[in-house]
Amino acid sequence: MIGVDWGTTSLRAYRLDGAGAVLDRRESAQGILSVPQGGFPAVLDGAIRPWLDAGEELVLLCGMVGSRQGWREAPYLPCPAGPAEIAAAAVPLAFPGAQRCFLVPGLSARGPEGVPDVMRGEETKMIGLLSELGDGAASRATLCLPGTHSKWARLEGGRVAGFATRMTGETRAVLLGHSILGRLSAPARDQGSSDEAFRRGVRRSRDRGGLLHHLFGTRALGLMGELAAEETDDYLSGLLVGHEVRAAVEDGGTTGGGTVHLAGSATLCRLYALAFAEYGVAHRLHDPDIAARGLHRIGATLP
Amino acid sequence: MIGVDWGTTSLRAYRLDGAGAVLDRRESAQGILSVPQGGFPAVLDGAIRPWLDAGEELVLLCGMVGSRQGWREAPYLPCPAGPAEIAAAAVPLAFPGAQRCFLVPGLSARGPEGVPDVMRGEETKMIGLLSELGDGAASRATLCLPGTHSKWARLEGGRVAGFATRMTGETRAVLLGHSILGRLSAPARDQGSSDEAFRRGVRRSRDRGGLLHHLFGTRALGLMGELAAEETDDYLSGLLVGHEVRAAVEDGGTTGGGTVHLAGSATLCRLYALAFAEYGVAHRLHDPDIAARGLHRIGATLP
Repeated sequence: MIGVDWGTTSLRAYRLDGAGAVLDRRESAQGILSVPQGGFPAVLDGAIRPWLDAGEELVLLCGMVGSRQGWREAPYLPCPAGPAEIAAAAVPLAFPGAQRCFLVPGLSARGPEGVPDVMRGEETKMIGLLSELGDGAASRATLCLPGTHSKWARLEGGRVAGFATRMTGETRAVLLGHSILGRLSAPARDQGSSDEAFRRGVRRSRDRGGLLHHLFGTRALGLMGELAAEETDDYLSGLLVGHEVRAAVEDGGTTGGGTVHLAGSATLCRLYALAFAEYGVAHRLHDPDIAARGLHRIGATLP
Repeated sequence: MIGVDWGTTSLRAYRLDGAGAVLDRRESAQGILSVPQGGFPAVLDGAIRPWLDAGEELVLLCGMVGSRQGWREAPYLPCPAGPAEIAAAAVPLAFPGAQRCFLVPGLSARGPEGVPDVMRGEETKMIGLLSELGDGAASRATLCLPGTHSKWARLEGGRVAGFATRMTGETRAVLLGHSILGRLSAPARDQGSSDEAFRRGVRRSRDRGGLLHHLFGTRALGLMGELAAEETDDYLSGLLVGHEVRAAVEDGGTTGGGTVHLAGSATLCRLYALAFAEYGVAHRLHDPDIAARGLHRIGATLP
């Protein structure tokens, strides 16, 4: 089969064998924002034509390609949802290049107060992680997928039971790019001092006062000569990731053995591991390629 | 005397009589960012020349004019500080137009964990409020000056005992201007629905999950059709102001009779009053012109 993780700014395609092993892969910057109206079939065909010619019949797409701004909207599927529910809700697509083509739906959830949350793309990574963990561990586990919009999920009985998104990466980006905190910042000197500034921000997140107060403290520390311009970015990142971890811990988001299963870019995972250590939270790092694994698992479960 | 509140984007000058009454006032957009290097004496002279010609001898300046980016830096004075300490630390300025000219210093404080905080300009408003409250009430009171960087201060024994800044207004501005939340937003319909969306955001701030999660909820509510584009801005404002008030309440920032003394722009004060009501916090609204009162009080205390 062919699995495609098609996001806002990138397209990652995998040719997978019957056991889910990656036979071949292609990656391009043809995210959905770069696709002209009506252009999705042509871009997909260009990306995976050799594999179709070689006889692949099934194409499964996940990510923002299934959003309102994508090829076609695949409605959010409410949690709890596992491979069976997701496969059953996959949306068939008319794509002349393949015999069968489907969109993976995103997931929705409700917090304890009824406020909704959504994800699109991460559900496939979560199903991949669930496969990797095996049914025993996946009966009860906590996942963290860090990023622009970090996802924290609870797995229960082999399904995604619920999740919470935290806007950590995007908040960091807009504060650095457009607030007074960014104007204080200079490029970091080296990884050692960078890590120490990050850890200092994480430790600050444990204090009282609230995030909005801690943010201004970044500026006050700078003005008083207690935080170097080269440390500002890392300290701010530590503050925000720290508040993310703090809220997850307070929400009981690290129950189920206490180990957080972490998957994402190497850079982010390294920083989250530092933050987990400051909070005394155990974690296990997973392969960043879990999207391919999830696409295979859902593909194998299609009706 | 002449008092001048000279901030980043505006200049407000007051001619005050011996009792502190405002005899005349001038306001312009000649904030310090618009003043060319070395241009401060000329701009000040242009703003207050008629009052100097009429015989005023003392000029007292507060605000960002005393920052590193201003006319001259007036070092931060550590709390606790009242009118006597502030007047004693006023920095004399060479201004040929007046017999005596001084800069009011900003204040610094340390939180319980030793992290510094700073203000510049607000200390003068606080001294004005302190004068307005009279020595009895000012022996122990909580102040809130909402804004880009909201200030919460404790008055004790007629001095500013300590304070905490929360970056509420600036965080709102950068999220609306540059994040996915701003792209969801449309102009509000009317004040009634606007207030209700603001209150809904304040109520959400009382829930678990943390600010970073609540921020993303703004988007999820929009995607699920549970928050209109016209409500996004007000809901987000309510969320942020709510988190500010929540943190202040958790920090014990509303001790001292339980009444928060509020002063600022009419628009902001109206919204903060809505947020206080949701949190069950009593407040008393003060004249926005307290800077003039503070300048008079400090001027009258100069050595």
